[in-house]
Amino acid sequence: MAVVQPVVGVVGAGVVDARTPVITADDLGFSRGDGCFDSLRVLIGDDGVARTEGLEAHLARLATSADALGIESPPTYAWSELIEAMLASLHTPGEGTLKLILTRGREWLPQAGPTALVVLTYRGRPNDEAVARARRGVRVTALSSGRPSDAFLDAPWLLGGVKTLSYAINVAAQREARARGADDVLFISTDGYALDGPTSGFLAVLDEALLTTPTEGTGILASTTVQRILAAARADGMPAREELIPVSELSRARGAWLVSSSRGPAPITELDGRQLALDPALTQRIARYAGFA
Amino acid sequence: MAVVQPVVGVVGAGVVDARTPVITADDLGFSRGDGCFDSLRVLIGDDGVARTEGLEAHLARLATSADALGIESPPTYAWSELIEAMLASLHTPGEGTLKLILTRGREWLPQAGPTALVVLTYRGRPNDEAVARARRGVRVTALSSGRPSDAFLDAPWLLGGVKTLSYAINVAAQREARARGADDVLFISTDGYALDGPTSGFLAVLDEALLTTPTEGTGILASTTVQRILAAARADGMPAREELIPVSELSRARGAWLVSSSRGPAPITELDGRQLALDPALTQRIARYAGFA
Repeated sequence: MAVVQPVVGVVGAGVVDARTPVITADDLGFSRGDGCFDSLRVLIGDDGVARTEGLEAHLARLATSADALGIESPPTYAWSELIEAMLASLHTPGEGTLKLILTRGREWLPQAGPTALVVLTYRGRPNDEAVARARRGVRVTALSSGRPSDAFLDAPWLLGGVKTLSYAINVAAQREARARGADDVLFISTDGYALDGPTSGFLAVLDEALLTTPTEGTGILASTTVQRILAAARADGMPAREELIPVSELSRARGAWLVSSSRGPAPITELDGRQLALDPALTQRIARYAGFA
Repeated sequence: MAVVQPVVGVVGAGVVDARTPVITADDLGFSRGDGCFDSLRVLIGDDGVARTEGLEAHLARLATSADALGIESPPTYAWSELIEAMLASLHTPGEGTLKLILTRGREWLPQAGPTALVVLTYRGRPNDEAVARARRGVRVTALSSGRPSDAFLDAPWLLGGVKTLSYAINVAAQREARARGADDVLFISTDGYALDGPTSGFLAVLDEALLTTPTEGTGILASTTVQRILAAARADGMPAREELIPVSELSRARGAWLVSSSRGPAPITELDGRQLALDPALTQRIARYAGFA
């Protein structure tokens, strides 16, 4: 996957050189992971024009995260203007990722307000090796989240559903997966339910219904891609709903997937070394629901 | 509490202007909270010479955190040289805090290696209002950590005991405390044990023994100040040990304290509005054990 130099933009300062430091040592997003982010897919068509996918929904989710943290996000037009200026620099057909980052701002200069920046990464042609590999499937290891499936009910300070910059456990879990010879992680609650992956949502087809983990109480992030898939499945006449799935039930599932906005659904081929059922036609259908051809 | 402009130092670059950005947008410490830190107290004597407290122990704890994250910390001499250069800028008798920050480095330039920096903040005279206020006590609210007290056993990916930059939940918990009219937080496990505070260790005297939460399995940070207090208590003939304390037992404790390296022990005067026993002489004794006169 060819990654060219990303483009960095700062709300209030515009597009800056990506190699230049933009964050001070006292930025609370840096020193305490006290901030939030959101990521979305960018498609550059054969006409050389870059378009975002679901920018409104992602800006809304960022606003929800910011609210939960008590951080005032810049107005939508400030984000949009900056993003527009950044997208204008992309012309090569392909796809990329737009990451919006918002922090509480500077500890020693609080009057400067929140820090808001955007990182645009170009990743190459849409049907490149990464997406193709995802479609072939991932070997997954199940790791405990250390919390019961209802831990986040009435506990807003645990920041359930908030896409914070505090991602160290997610990174550590992926490192553990690699150490175990797996590709990715499925988090499991202490009471035995499948939750989600460190950077992906979770889907399974059980008894002919498309199921995903409920966000309420579990603390998982609301995946815009999962929501899109569920809506498209329902429109297509397929039963689809939020429901807690015991990890012990996955052996009889027709399929299970980790889902991300950048690569779509990746079927779980193995869970802790045990093979799960694969249905390439079903994977293709879910990929289509997610907007991947 | 007068806070003057802090001093910022970067390993490999030396002392820099604190107002200048030093972190790039792709630093994994910023974008994912993927890094660790440690803080220690600095005392500037009447001779105008600044001395660190327990630098070796804190560098050792930072190294343990870095190991857990799989980040290679710069050699001790690189930290020490930088810290020495920074301390040389402080001459006014008083105290300060030294914060060492280590991140996995840059996502787009991994060959640049980890980012390592030091922030030195001067806080004024040691017996200033903040410490005096801490000695008078804090009103605390008990908040669930969402995890049982043994959640971290055999789950290294949950980063128990690792002082990571992913601190958003700790910040959110302190915000919740303020919203409830309290000064600070005591985290409680789902099985009802007192754990620690968002930025402090926890101590209680129960049945004439000084008790603190075990680090094993609970995921709490090993507080160097708590360890110092326990060692001094034992040397003084007072029974002191790690033992899980049910929060329901605190009503019959002789005293309970939140402990930090910057202010020493702060007696908990109220827990969720219920008064706890106060023993100023005992608080004074524990403060002495912690190195506060």
